[in-house]
Amino acid sequence: MDSKFDGVIIVSGGLDSTTLLYHLVKQNLKITALSFDYGQRHSRELVCACWQCDSLKVPHKIIDLGNIKQLLQGSSLTSPEIVTPEGHYAQENMKLTVVPNRNMIMLSLAIACAISLKAPKVWYGAHAGDHAIYPDCRPAFVKAMQRTADLCDWNPVDIEAPFLGIDKAGIVSIGLELGVRYDQTWTCYSGREKACGKCGSCSERLEAFEKNHLKDPLEYEH
Amino acid sequence: MDSKFDGVIIVSGGLDSTTLLYHLVKQNLKITALSFDYGQRHSRELVCACWQCDSLKVPHKIIDLGNIKQLLQGSSLTSPEIVTPEGHYAQENMKLTVVPNRNMIMLSLAIACAISLKAPKVWYGAHAGDHAIYPDCRPAFVKAMQRTADLCDWNPVDIEAPFLGIDKAGIVSIGLELGVRYDQTWTCYSGREKACGKCGSCSERLEAFEKNHLKDPLEYEH
Repeated sequence: MDSKFDGVIIVSGGLDSTTLLYHLVKQNLKITALSFDYGQRHSRELVCACWQCDSLKVPHKIIDLGNIKQLLQGSSLTSPEIVTPEGHYAQENMKLTVVPNRNMIMLSLAIACAISLKAPKVWYGAHAGDHAIYPDCRPAFVKAMQRTADLCDWNPVDIEAPFLGIDKAGIVSIGLELGVRYDQTWTCYSGREKACGKCGSCSERLEAFEKNHLKDPLEYEH
Repeated sequence: MDSKFDGVIIVSGGLDSTTLLYHLVKQNLKITALSFDYGQRHSRELVCACWQCDSLKVPHKIIDLGNIKQLLQGSSLTSPEIVTPEGHYAQENMKLTVVPNRNMIMLSLAIACAISLKAPKVWYGAHAGDHAIYPDCRPAFVKAMQRTADLCDWNPVDIEAPFLGIDKAGIVSIGLELGVRYDQTWTCYSGREKACGKCGSCSERLEAFEKNHLKDPLEYEH
């Protein structure tokens, strides 16, 4: 296809997608970035996504999906009345934070964007650490999405998830090589000034830096 | 799964999805309906969707996706500057009216809704007449979506497209048996008071009634 873009990347402003963004920029790929505001309880991640795209001069759009909140009853990420589980990732308590079908929704919109731009690829940051927690981060799901992306238009779109076999420590290791500004990424489920250091997401992130024998540059409450 | 709903139906307010709505209500299925406002040039279809759901006492939500318009450059359904092709469906001129990846977007949101409701099914009105025009109405696409819906959550959702092997005349035939109020469905690409009777969509609809030896109860300009 004849496009000025190689593809579309989904950037949340978290650690994984930001590392992926640097990874693609390093390869001189012409990309455009999409973020989704689906009524998260706080916008810290989105602010980071904007900062990162701006600093790397990658065109960036935030798509407001606030209206789908009414579909997503019962998720602690979008319903303020449900308390976010703290502590290390354990499959049972983390299920509370799953927004139903979030990746299919975001990928379907990113694919639409790629088709509009006549761009051949969509990238997203699914990684090995999420397989057990999020059904829509599993390799089988990515493969099934690839098949739908092959068929949804006359010109197929490739779905690329290059971190699918890599865990968070491995991603941090790649990111450190690339000079990723991890102080401008947000992982914590809370939206307070500093990251809580206690929620499942913070715990996993801190562990990833520890495995790389480095201190996370982000400020923590604990 | 334990849900008070059997599933979610995507209702556009057109002829196909309205017939499907009656078809499910006739079977006493407990359904909830979703419509999508993706920035169509007119809202005649959505008004019909509301009327039909209201008259059949089916709970109904309209999800405003106006914000995705910025992704959908170049589609005549959402960009007022592009003239809608008139005349009979011919693959080349109808390609202009395709909103990229529309069915994957709508299905992914309907699946999210079904997961939230713990409902096992999603219905949509893809039919045989659309296969050559819309890539995301082909049986292979529906099959691929089924696979993603099997994997996107721990509880799989079934995608049902019961009209997939039936053409528009066949759908009208089913609908006439069910007593569908076709005067309250909208098919025309224009949003004027009466249907134009000339666009590809009107032509196909008129032909479907003709094949059933009946006059379409909708008022036409021509």
